Amino acid sequence: MRPSKRQPDEMRAISFERGISKHAEGSCLVRFGDTHVLCTASLEEKVPGWLRNTGKGWVTAEYGMLPRSTGTRMRREASSGKQGGRTLEIQRLVGRSLRSVVDLQALGEVQITVDCDVVQADGGTRTAAITGGFIALHDCLSWMHARHMIKLDKVLKDYVAAISCGIYDGVPVMDLDYAEDSTAQTDANFVMTGKGGIVEIQGTAEGEPFTDEEFQALMGLARKGISRLIELQKMAVG
Amino acid sequence: MRPSKRQPDEMRAISFERGISKHAEGSCLVRFGDTHVLCTASLEEKVPGWLRNTGKGWVTAEYGMLPRSTGTRMRREASSGKQGGRTLEIQRLVGRSLRSVVDLQALGEVQITVDCDVVQADGGTRTAAITGGFIALHDCLSWMHARHMIKLDKVLKDYVAAISCGIYDGVPVMDLDYAEDSTAQTDANFVMTGKGGIVEIQGTAEGEPFTDEEFQALMGLARKGISRLIELQKMAVG
Amino acid sequence: MRPSKRQPDEMRAISFERGISKHAEGSCLVRFGDTHVLCTASLEEKVPGWLRNTGKGWVTAEYGMLPRSTGTRMRREASSGKQGGRTLEIQRLVGRSLRSVVDLQALGEVQITVDCDVVQADGGTRTAAITGGFIALHDCLSWMHARHMIKLDKVLKDYVAAISCGIYDGVPVMDLDYAEDSTAQTDANFVMTGKGGIVEIQGTAEGEPFTDEEFQALMGLARKGISRLIELQKMAVG
Amino acid sequence: MRPSKRQPDEMRAISFERGISKHAEGSCLVRFGDTHVLCTASLEEKVPGWLRNTGKGWVTAEYGMLPRSTGTRMRREASSGKQGGRTLEIQRLVGRSLRSVVDLQALGEVQITVDCDVVQADGGTRTAAITGGFIALHDCLSWMHARHMIKLDKVLKDYVAAISCGIYDGVPVMDLDYAEDSTAQTDANFVMTGKGGIVEIQGTAEGEPFTDEEFQALMGLARKGISRLIELQKMAVG
Amino acid sequence: MRPSKRQPDEMRAISFERGISKHAEGSCLVRFGDTHVLCTASLEEKVPGWLRNTGKGWVTAEYGMLPRSTGTRMRREASSGKQGGRTLEIQRLVGRSLRSVVDLQALGEVQITVDCDVVQADGGTRTAAITGGFIALHDCLSWMHARHMIKLDKVLKDYVAAISCGIYDGVPVMDLDYAEDSTAQTDANFVMTGKGGIVEIQGTAEGEPFTDEEFQALMGLARKGISRLIELQKMAVG
Amino acid sequence: MRPSKRQPDEMRAISFERGISKHAEGSCLVRFGDTHVLCTASLEEKVPGWLRNTGKGWVTAEYGMLPRSTGTRMRREASSGKQGGRTLEIQRLVGRSLRSVVDLQALGEVQITVDCDVVQADGGTRTAAITGGFIALHDCLSWMHARHMIKLDKVLKDYVAAISCGIYDGVPVMDLDYAEDSTAQTDANFVMTGKGGIVEIQGTAEGEPFTDEEFQALMGLARKGISRLIELQKMAVG
Repeated sequence: MRPSKRQPDEMRAISFERGISKHAEGSCLVRFGDTHVLCTASLEEKVPGWLRNTGKGWVTAEYGMLPRSTGTRMRREASSGKQGGRTLEIQRLVGRSLRSVVDLQALGEVQITVDCDVVQADGGTRTAAITGGFIALHDCLSWMHARHMIKLDKVLKDYVAAISCGIYDGVPVMDLDYAEDSTAQTDANFVMTGKGGIVEIQGTAEGEPFTDEEFQALMGLARKGISRLIELQKMAVG
Repeated sequence: MRPSKRQPDEMRAISFERGISKHAEGSCLVRFGDTHVLCTASLEEKVPGWLRNTGKGWVTAEYGMLPRSTGTRMRREASSGKQGGRTLEIQRLVGRSLRSVVDLQALGEVQITVDCDVVQADGGTRTAAITGGFIALHDCLSWMHARHMIKLDKVLKDYVAAISCGIYDGVPVMDLDYAEDSTAQTDANFVMTGKGGIVEIQGTAEGEPFTDEEFQALMGLARKGISRLIELQKMAVG
Repeated sequence: MRPSKRQPDEMRAISFERGISKHAEGSCLVRFGDTHVLCTASLEEKVPGWLRNTGKGWVTAEYGMLPRSTGTRMRREASSGKQGGRTLEIQRLVGRSLRSVVDLQALGEVQITVDCDVVQADGGTRTAAITGGFIALHDCLSWMHARHMIKLDKVLKDYVAAISCGIYDGVPVMDLDYAEDSTAQTDANFVMTGKGGIVEIQGTAEGEPFTDEEFQALMGLARKGISRLIELQKMAVG
Repeated sequence: MRPSKRQPDEMRAISFERGISKHAEGSCLVRFGDTHVLCTASLEEKVPGWLRNTGKGWVTAEYGMLPRSTGTRMRREASSGKQGGRTLEIQRLVGRSLRSVVDLQALGEVQITVDCDVVQADGGTRTAAITGGFIALHDCLSWMHARHMIKLDKVLKDYVAAISCGIYDGVPVMDLDYAEDSTAQTDANFVMTGKGGIVEIQGTAEGEPFTDEEFQALMGLARKGISRLIELQKMAVG
Repeated sequence: MRPSKRQPDEMRAISFERGISKHAEGSCLVRFGDTHVLCTASLEEKVPGWLRNTGKGWVTAEYGMLPRSTGTRMRREASSGKQGGRTLEIQRLVGRSLRSVVDLQALGEVQITVDCDVVQADGGTRTAAITGGFIALHDCLSWMHARHMIKLDKVLKDYVAAISCGIYDGVPVMDLDYAEDSTAQTDANFVMTGKGGIVEIQGTAEGEPFTDEEFQALMGLARKGISRLIELQKMAVG
Repeated sequence: MRPSKRQPDEMRAISFERGISKHAEGSCLVRFGDTHVLCTASLEEKVPGWLRNTGKGWVTAEYGMLPRSTGTRMRREASSGKQGGRTLEIQRLVGRSLRSVVDLQALGEVQITVDCDVVQADGGTRTAAITGGFIALHDCLSWMHARHMIKLDKVLKDYVAAISCGIYDGVPVMDLDYAEDSTAQTDANFVMTGKGGIVEIQGTAEGEPFTDEEFQALMGLARKGISRLIELQKMAVG
């Protein structure tokens, strides 16, 4: 039995609250149950040095957690003077995932930065960041489309969403919350597109190594979950 | 005429949304019009070194802005590797202001950290942080009171709130928004208590120096505004 | 009775020793009693990025304390790897104060950096830094005037000086030394110009909040003290 | 055809040169073709704070690249003042992988740090680091066993090795070198144990998303390759 | 002919101004011509970790230059976030030199930090720092002697001073000023004790390598100069 | 008797292993007994700012120690966030030494960075770095000569090598290993050219000051040792 009483293949309540920022070109407060991530997409003229004068654009992401988004207050990264390894790892993952559905050539020489700030954490912040970050990115591109800066359907090639799956108490389950995540034997994050392509797989044995069969079960759950997430994304922005 | 069409002595719409964090002992999303600051108060066992074994506690504050809380995206302080001078200045001010109404001896040897994170900025973030931070602090102390850790009325000596006033287009006005703040000749922040005591005054001439008369006018407006803010605080937590 | 036996409205002995640096365009060792601050004004061709090609110049300030300027040796900021919040706050204040009397357009596209290094501290280092920094700035502008780079009287619009006042043992007093500063209930710094304009007011209740009447008393003392400081500045550079 | 003329399921020449450090308790220079990583395992008495007085030990890893281990000289991380995101990500992976085969309780309250320094890079540095780091760790544990500090077979539960697989020019291939890695559509790293358990899977679509079938092909190759690597490890330390 | 018209073996005017700090246990403003270094010696109870509970003390030094001590303003090291290589090199040298004449066992478990801050630079700042730092150290030890904390003559074993010599325009000269230092072919710093022992020699060919004969000539000059400096130290503290 | 049973004027076994890097333009693994330093010379188009458009090039060096190159594991400098004083001091010395034999004008506007990474330390790492760094630099210049970018004999003016000498147990000895270095009373490093010119002398009394006679003895040994090292360099690259 899961702590939340959910079925093994049952996701938490998912919601997307769009347009929550007065300033950002695209924004979304995404909720996976008690995990809440504020995503904003900011359009900037300047691109990274290696893209200058190539006509190609860039999509990047940054990730942060508010100090008391967690059960125990964490030290503020701005105050400790650097971003930790986990932060850097997550923001690289979010950036790669979002870029996988963008045609950077069609975007033109601009940069979109998607900031994902966790205001409340209860497990699965990186998958929520990718799934909600997509909505913010979409809305930023719509904003540009409305101003004739791009053609939305040329730049945005597909939907992309992410979910975590894991072996909890011997059973493969979908969308782990913190209570499950902190005790799961195995934890895997999957990023997939609307057409079913795989963008990223990260599976980690927390204690004992896992088997092929277990991994295939997690992958099956992920496919099911992501397909549901993408339906919800379509309802949100459709 | 103010850009927002407000009267010179008219504050923006103020609201306090309490209990918005599942984890923090006290929390509040405070809104001064389009300025939104998320405040959490976190109780911790450890105190700063110089208070160890004194029986006295501490209240401190940290301040941050989400990168796209502003019109143009700012660099994330965690990524630039340090907190800027403005951030340090504001969090020192918020900490001093909140401590002015707490009996640190009666609090006992614990620390409360009030995190003020600006999710949307439209001028006056420091005054919103103090005013909303007070609510989060109050609720944290209530939480402790309910667990017989302290007596709320022994520890919390008074209310405290803050407002900015300035000379806009030659007229003294209350609670400047960004459009006013960025062009005001003079800008002053006032922090006062429920009993009318002054905790902090910070007045700055942005262009021309200001006169005694102008300053007295600002101070009068501030007294009026803060008294209204404290009424609203009382309604929120009373 | 003040620890120094001074009258409530009695300043410490003030002196300006000009031209103490062989290299700087303007320099001054200012003494407020046992508080000694070495001020140098350095002319540089480059301006901050946002002023490039605007024809406008800039005046900025930096502040530091020698490690043993204080009763107990402090850690060197260069060795701890960053400037603390107090340092940043003070140097921002000194810069704003000096800019308030300079016509940046008439200065032309150059930068003057006023370094204020405390060689011995006994309270009131920031007010000494502003008051002595003005002399260094004046002498740098004279140096430029003598070389036909500017017209001194077009660029320098007024005098500017600063003083701290506070409530010590229930009595409003002027120009607090360390013994007073460390126990004062209320501490306020005032920056004013030769024509009597107010540039900056910073008042802080260290313990109990203060009243309007107390604040007005401090402000009255400040006006008296600053007017005396500006007389001394005039004697020094006149 | 692969740039190196290897068959799709052909690994590069692998070698382990043990005992290459006079000082370290265990050490190994591992070569995967032209990728050379120097691994040392250092025994230390102190453990991280959260393990103090628990009787449990810790195994951790650090990773670095010499500035000219790559085709173009990279900036030295010690000089730029921080370890980049990629470095932190890799050393966290190496640490997790090595811990997966160690009984930390049986190790006792000591820490082993495995340093993996790339002296020459030609793709696959993280998989070489894990595979060679295991040898250094093994030899450190043997050193402790010889001194009756632990029982080797109680502490070291299994072998562990890693390999990268990818889709190069449409074909799934094993053990990518730099020429392949920099142009592969998909790149996945696998970490597995001697008993066939999966410790970590990291698959990333560099360009187009990949399919289930492609991923299964990579996983099949990885199983084959890792099983060969573990045979080589056994020959090295058996 | 030297730019300063001095004879090859002629030092600049040397002076020691003692007791210039109200707070420090020992202090000295040393002048080698236009090179002025403010030296303070601070007594602290705590010693570095590796000396704790050994009964032995420590003498260390820190070095800094005020930003406008030089012809062109330098960036403040506290603001750039780290001490440069030259600064670290000099403060290590000053510390070693002063320790060479102190019996750390007889000093007892305390630390003396000698801060050397260059207020005006004209070449030879490190030799002035050592020579003047000795006076500050001496006076700090006298202060301790007067309080029966140590026996001065047991702790301070000898005098120590330093001078730079170099080949300027083909001629070996003593005590180089900036005009000479910046064009000298060879530059050497010597640290010696009152009894004539050598503590440190640092010779560097700036352009062409130098010969044995040249080096011996510099060493002869140094011996002469240091012996004069030590006479002056004796007059100052004797 | 020396711990290694060597004669006072006997060097450790010296070897140069060239071409050990697939990527670097010049490279050499130098061994002074158990001290092993990996040196690579990297050619880069960009020069430091102050040389831009002067037609002159630059040679610089960087130095690092692998964390377990020493008896006890040291903290990785990349992880501690800065290079220590000793590291900066050594890399400045290596750079100066190598530049002393290069005609920077004839080199043309390029930069060569010589990285010296200590893979195993047993005393004398800086002298090994200079001596081996020369070989890497030579081979980089040969690489450029072969591509008609420079004339080797115009750019490289001489050989350069370095050795440490010290007073061990009262006897002047050559090429100290760690056992000697850590207990020697006096330690001096000498850098000289093939023609016998002196490039750098650094002598330090670790305990008691040393005498002229002792220093002359060390210098005599150094001359003998360096002359032997340069013979070995000639055999290596001749």
